[in-house]
Amino acid sequence: MFCTTKPPGSVSPAKRQIKEVKETKTTINCVTFPLPGEGPEQQLLKPNDWSYCDYFWADKKDPQGTAQVAGFEVLLQKQLKGKQMQKEMAEFIHERIKIEEEYAKNLSKLSLSALAAQEEGTLGEAWTQLKKSLHDEAEVHLKFSNKLHSEVEKPLLSFRGDNFKKDLKKYDHHIADLRKQLASRFASVEKARKALADRQKDLEVKTQQLEIKLSNKHEEDIKKARRKSTQAGDDLMRCVDLYNQTQCKWFEEMVTTSMELEKLEVERIEWIQQHLRQYTTLRHETDMFNQSMVEPVDQLLQNVDPAKDRELWVKENKTGDVRPVDMDL
Amino acid sequence: MFCTTKPPGSVSPAKRQIKEVKETKTTINCVTFPLPGEGPEQQLLKPNDWSYCDYFWADKKDPQGTAQVAGFEVLLQKQLKGKQMQKEMAEFIHERIKIEEEYAKNLSKLSLSALAAQEEGTLGEAWTQLKKSLHDEAEVHLKFSNKLHSEVEKPLLSFRGDNFKKDLKKYDHHIADLRKQLASRFASVEKARKALADRQKDLEVKTQQLEIKLSNKHEEDIKKARRKSTQAGDDLMRCVDLYNQTQCKWFEEMVTTSMELEKLEVERIEWIQQHLRQYTTLRHETDMFNQSMVEPVDQLLQNVDPAKDRELWVKENKTGDVRPVDMDL
Repeated sequence: MFCTTKPPGSVSPAKRQIKEVKETKTTINCVTFPLPGEGPEQQLLKPNDWSYCDYFWADKKDPQGTAQVAGFEVLLQKQLKGKQMQKEMAEFIHERIKIEEEYAKNLSKLSLSALAAQEEGTLGEAWTQLKKSLHDEAEVHLKFSNKLHSEVEKPLLSFRGDNFKKDLKKYDHHIADLRKQLASRFASVEKARKALADRQKDLEVKTQQLEIKLSNKHEEDIKKARRKSTQAGDDLMRCVDLYNQTQCKWFEEMVTTSMELEKLEVERIEWIQQHLRQYTTLRHETDMFNQSMVEPVDQLLQNVDPAKDRELWVKENKTGDVRPVDMDL
Repeated sequence: MFCTTKPPGSVSPAKRQIKEVKETKTTINCVTFPLPGEGPEQQLLKPNDWSYCDYFWADKKDPQGTAQVAGFEVLLQKQLKGKQMQKEMAEFIHERIKIEEEYAKNLSKLSLSALAAQEEGTLGEAWTQLKKSLHDEAEVHLKFSNKLHSEVEKPLLSFRGDNFKKDLKKYDHHIADLRKQLASRFASVEKARKALADRQKDLEVKTQQLEIKLSNKHEEDIKKARRKSTQAGDDLMRCVDLYNQTQCKWFEEMVTTSMELEKLEVERIEWIQQHLRQYTTLRHETDMFNQSMVEPVDQLLQNVDPAKDRELWVKENKTGDVRPVDMDL
């Protein structure tokens, strides 16, 4: 497994020291990476997926190159920004709702106006229908705004409530704690490595002294120094083991959590996509309803007939159809 | 012809008087009509047409039965009301224009808002298009309001300008003058009829006196009275002729002018019909344009892909894909 540590004590550090091995690894900000070209090629954990778990292992330098931002922090910022975008979209929809309500209110008010209410006949019918259609149009826009509220704005606003930021903070603290622990374990490794080096130096000095003047006292010293050196070696081994265990734990949490964040982001995008689609569906419906509102007006305008209107009006208003004749003497 | 007068002097009124003829005509407000069932049946001038020229010969009593309104006045009122209706329709369209302008202004303003402008990837593209579509929607409504102004409101307002009422007044005065002339001619007839009756009475009295005591003096008186009576008869005949000529003139003008008013009303109805049709056409266009504005949003929402967005974002923001490895001793 990528993060299993070797069983402690498999190779004696004292013996290893002798080989003058080439450095194949580097530790940056307490995290250990292979050097380029060294060690087996790393396959991505989720190839072709552009999964978060594959791309945020290093820290990110900010543009000034002064502060370092952990890769995980970059992922968290993405989440926070996503939450903000979603909130702003809801705000945008809310503004649209207000515009539709205002428009509907104005159309409705106009539809109730008495203007040209006394027009007569088939033209009067068409005109009355035209005003009625305005009322229906207003209703369509009011319905649109109501549906925008319940089917777009509200879902956008309520998706991931206040708990979301708390959850993100928990993730943040957890991963940061593991990084701190890693730093502390790394310091222990450094300290143990220095102690071992000191002990090995001491053993070396004492071994050289033995070559000059042999004595029981010196042999005892060398034995003691060798024992201490071996002990320091074992200490280092334990520290490295602990470091590797902690790094492994951090690694696992990074993978788990970034996969979780990735899932959250997929959900967010799909949620927004779904509700913006609902917005366009409602828009289409509004246009179609509006068109059907105008159709009865078209129909009645088709039926407008000056001759028919004249007949109706004459029947109602005629004063007499007997024509004058010449007076007789 | 319906209004030709008989050649004067064809029948001597003196002789006619003797027959005690049944009254077959009546004169109402100085206009002479046949009595019901008397004289030949009147065919309508324009049968099946409900033409104005056939139905407004009598005067109209107002609801209180006190004042009389001439039939022609009823036709004129119809014209004035029609003009008013047309003006009110233009006013209604003007209100609609204002509502559309306001709506367009608000949509356009919202489309420029920076809300969620930082959304990224395919979702960001769809969102940008959604905001752009709002701008296009605003344009559609602005175009609608502009066309409503030039293609509906203006034609409705400018159809028959200020001259129209002046023209109506001219018609009114002309027909009223002819009615006044008719009244004066009718008064002359009445006066002449009375003069004739007086003369005939005088002749009768003198003729009776002759039967009692015959003398030259009396015969002279009777001759003189007969001459005067014949003269009065000729006077009446002339007055009746003049009356009939005037009534004929009025009749002709009534027919001509009411046909003209009828033509104006047909034009008005067709003009309004045409421009209200233009209104519904523009409404349909607006809905169709609006629908096409939403289509690119639909397209881009179709293309929203969380995996693609992750790829784009990861490529831009990744901090490092080399995974940590165990530290060596």
